Amino acid sequence: MTETWTASPDDSGYMAAVDLGSNSFHMVIARVVDGALQLLHREKQKVQLAEGLNDELILSEDAINRGLAVLAQFADTLKPVPAQSVRVIATYTLRRAKNSAVFLHRAQAMFPYPIEVISGQEEARFIYQGVAHFEHYDSRRLVMDIGGGSTEFAIGEGFSPLRLASRNMGCVSYANQFFANGKISNKRFERAIIQAEQELEPIVSAYQETGWQQAVGTSGTIKTIRDMIVGLGWHPVCITLPDLIRLQELLVAQQNSFQLDLPGLADDRKPLICSGLAILIAAFQLLGIEQMYYVDAALREGVLYEMSDRLHHHDIREHTVHSLIKRYSIDIAQAGRVRQTALELFSQVRLDWQLEDEHADLLGWAATVYEIGLHINSSSVQRHSAYILRHANLPGFNQEQQLLLSALVRFHRRKIKADELPAFHLYQMPAVLNLLVLLRLAVLLNQKRQDDFLPPLLVCARPHQLTLDLPKDWLLQQPLLLADLQQEQQLLKKITFHLDCPVLTECAALADSFDPTDQDD
Amino acid sequence: MTETWTASPDDSGYMAAVDLGSNSFHMVIARVVDGALQLLHREKQKVQLAEGLNDELILSEDAINRGLAVLAQFADTLKPVPAQSVRVIATYTLRRAKNSAVFLHRAQAMFPYPIEVISGQEEARFIYQGVAHFEHYDSRRLVMDIGGGSTEFAIGEGFSPLRLASRNMGCVSYANQFFANGKISNKRFERAIIQAEQELEPIVSAYQETGWQQAVGTSGTIKTIRDMIVGLGWHPVCITLPDLIRLQELLVAQQNSFQLDLPGLADDRKPLICSGLAILIAAFQLLGIEQMYYVDAALREGVLYEMSDRLHHHDIREHTVHSLIKRYSIDIAQAGRVRQTALELFSQVRLDWQLEDEHADLLGWAATVYEIGLHINSSSVQRHSAYILRHANLPGFNQEQQLLLSALVRFHRRKIKADELPAFHLYQMPAVLNLLVLLRLAVLLNQKRQDDFLPPLLVCARPHQLTLDLPKDWLLQQPLLLADLQQEQQLLKKITFHLDCPVLTECAALADSFDPTDQDD
Repeated sequence: MTETWTASPDDSGYMAAVDLGSNSFHMVIARVVDGALQLLHREKQKVQLAEGLNDELILSEDAINRGLAVLAQFADTLKPVPAQSVRVIATYTLRRAKNSAVFLHRAQAMFPYPIEVISGQEEARFIYQGVAHFEHYDSRRLVMDIGGGSTEFAIGEGFSPLRLASRNMGCVSYANQFFANGKISNKRFERAIIQAEQELEPIVSAYQETGWQQAVGTSGTIKTIRDMIVGLGWHPVCITLPDLIRLQELLVAQQNSFQLDLPGLADDRKPLICSGLAILIAAFQLLGIEQMYYVDAALREGVLYEMSDRLHHHDIREHTVHSLIKRYSIDIAQAGRVRQTALELFSQVRLDWQLEDEHADLLGWAATVYEIGLHINSSSVQRHSAYILRHANLPGFNQEQQLLLSALVRFHRRKIKADELPAFHLYQMPAVLNLLVLLRLAVLLNQKRQDDFLPPLLVCARPHQLTLDLPKDWLLQQPLLLADLQQEQQLLKKITFHLDCPVLTECAALADSFDPTDQDD
Repeated sequence: MTETWTASPDDSGYMAAVDLGSNSFHMVIARVVDGALQLLHREKQKVQLAEGLNDELILSEDAINRGLAVLAQFADTLKPVPAQSVRVIATYTLRRAKNSAVFLHRAQAMFPYPIEVISGQEEARFIYQGVAHFEHYDSRRLVMDIGGGSTEFAIGEGFSPLRLASRNMGCVSYANQFFANGKISNKRFERAIIQAEQELEPIVSAYQETGWQQAVGTSGTIKTIRDMIVGLGWHPVCITLPDLIRLQELLVAQQNSFQLDLPGLADDRKPLICSGLAILIAAFQLLGIEQMYYVDAALREGVLYEMSDRLHHHDIREHTVHSLIKRYSIDIAQAGRVRQTALELFSQVRLDWQLEDEHADLLGWAATVYEIGLHINSSSVQRHSAYILRHANLPGFNQEQQLLLSALVRFHRRKIKADELPAFHLYQMPAVLNLLVLLRLAVLLNQKRQDDFLPPLLVCARPHQLTLDLPKDWLLQQPLLLADLQQEQQLLKKITFHLDCPVLTECAALADSFDPTDQDD
């Protein structure tokens, strides 16, 4: 199909979503026609990444190479799609692997699209969106997706998810743990089911309380089980618990998964069918699912739909930040002041520092939520803000974006501990530090928490340097701000950043004996 | 006065509060007469603990010995007071010193009362309560106390504090930093004032927004400044900013603090007067205080009043826990179930495990708030719960109690990392582990989140061992609970605790292949 993909003139014609799953890598290419998505191309490559993840959560060299080989093929296919219209999402295996940086780093060299690792809850959200856009349903719907390493659950109404969960159980990991050597027995099923039930136990009461009118399943595992039940003539369309139990009996009777011969069961699914079935039985039993339909949608479609939303300037991350403001009672007046100052500074330096729209978005959000930690305690607020942003469920943010938000607010004041900044692969460290400087200045300049307090700000950027011009007469009336700026110069010097403020030097005598290095309480 | 202190028959007659401050140790002994506190004895010993705290926050051997010598004297004076009616509070220096455990450990050997290190906000709360009980005032009142290492601020109405803050600036630490060698100059004052203002900057807008009708000061520093202003004939009762500035000029004119000769200024206050004055000027200027009265009440009186409240079964900590429930939208039905189960188990084992009322209180509160972290994320809830409880301002809890609450909820499920449990000196580790076992069991048994689900529970305790009897017929209908209990046995084994459950062994076959060690996600 590649010949049809010539870049459209307005750059918004084609878009692609790539899903680096634990069992397979998937790619979908689509275009927007009359405001709706039209799928042009779907591709699946079995990579079995999760199979290469050992007990210490180290991903094997073989698995890494299998993944990279597929990425190289995908890169070729993706060429006609504008780069900014490609989103690449990685899930369970790259989320959990301790050496995922190795994979991501090597991928960067031959795959020119940023790979976004997302949280389990984010994975569940994309799956939900994939289903919600595929087949609209106004009442409450439960969505379940059994992956290679994790299983996702969501309940929602229309396009709004109400509950999102990801559990660390998948058809690949459970196959290794409970059905090694292909042996099938009731005992093995019992153990797998009870462990899956233990995994589900913490979410059961909340899911039952929320409730649903319809249960749907996605993923190859659920499709295969549906196909088998239909193929066996047990039910024309959907999955019920009695049929799952019958299927277990049928599998146990055949004793070995390599020798299975059943309708609807492809060879590559044979080693994973028992583990997938055990997880599905556990979910049916514990959540009380009566029947489940299969829906041919998945994470990648959810990603695509969200991309088309972003094209229309509906960025779910805006909505997420607004939820945080409400949930944590953030002082919006102050957040607005700091955001405005930060973005004003940003606009003056973006060219010199080669910053992008994405950076402006993240800086603006960081400036909006930097005080979120006040909800826990005003003392050491920067630590609490960072903790909340690091660990909250932030729909729309991938893991690195979330990490960046957290890192920026962590050091929005006091000492900057450069060695505590996380390693990013989507962001260059100079850009991260530049954003941090802008956020810190915006906070510092708004310490008085007053509207119309600041004079017009003029900044001028060079690498590792920012020159800030402030009216001298005005600054001399702000001795505290002056002292804060002098202190900030010292603190930034420690990350070899030079904050130049010509007016300040005139008052340097005052600053000589300050030691601002002991103030990170 | 010691001859009047024979223990009263009902053990509630006498009570004492001891305050291990950074400059002096104080002791107050009182009794309840007709429901009101009658002060019997006040004692002050200058220890200058903060002077022994170096830049690396290590408390010197000399300072430790000075403190312990005073504790020995106090212990002698305290003999007639019932032990349970003595509260000993330590503040800034022991809160900050990295080797405070050395002091606390050595104190334990010769001073038979638990020493409670409290947070700065708790310090501010006690000071506020001391003032509020000393002199009732219905409108909003600002209270300020300048200590040796920290300065506390509070705003409140009647007995209810609305804002509490502690800033790391004190008359001893600022004397070392800005007025070394006794030299006094305007330059030195300017530097000290601007640094104090920087320290105050983060709280200014909130304090001004809350506002107050009356400002009062406590502490020796503020008393001395008031006495000087009155002694100089500048004002009959109170402190104003113009008089503070005049006092600065007067001090600067005398050039050296060792040679000061001013009315109201005792010798031992001379080295601390400039630093104290600088902090006070900064507060007046930045907060906009117009006039301040001195009140002869302090932290220790606040502690005493709270002890008398506890005697009447008003424990502020109950109120704190209820605030948490509301602020973090805790599921009170589930909290109630877990608390009830935990306390039911506790009552059956308290004698055998030699547990005390205090342990029951803490277990009950831990059981009430163990799910507080759901506010951040349901994934890894135990970590988020622990973080919030570790860092929130919890009025009424000393630092170790807060740490214990946090540690219990940290390991309310999943693996117990014994090496991550903090060191306590108020609590024995076996007791901590026993409370943890009870909390974990209470949570586990209530996983279904249902009222009237549990049968009557029978437990029997021995050191490092608990036998749990459950009706066999009932348990066999709960395969998931059964698996959870088996898993719990394995997890507790790792802290060499034996959970014995006779019915379980009958079903042991099921459990053989579980590996619950890899589940702390």
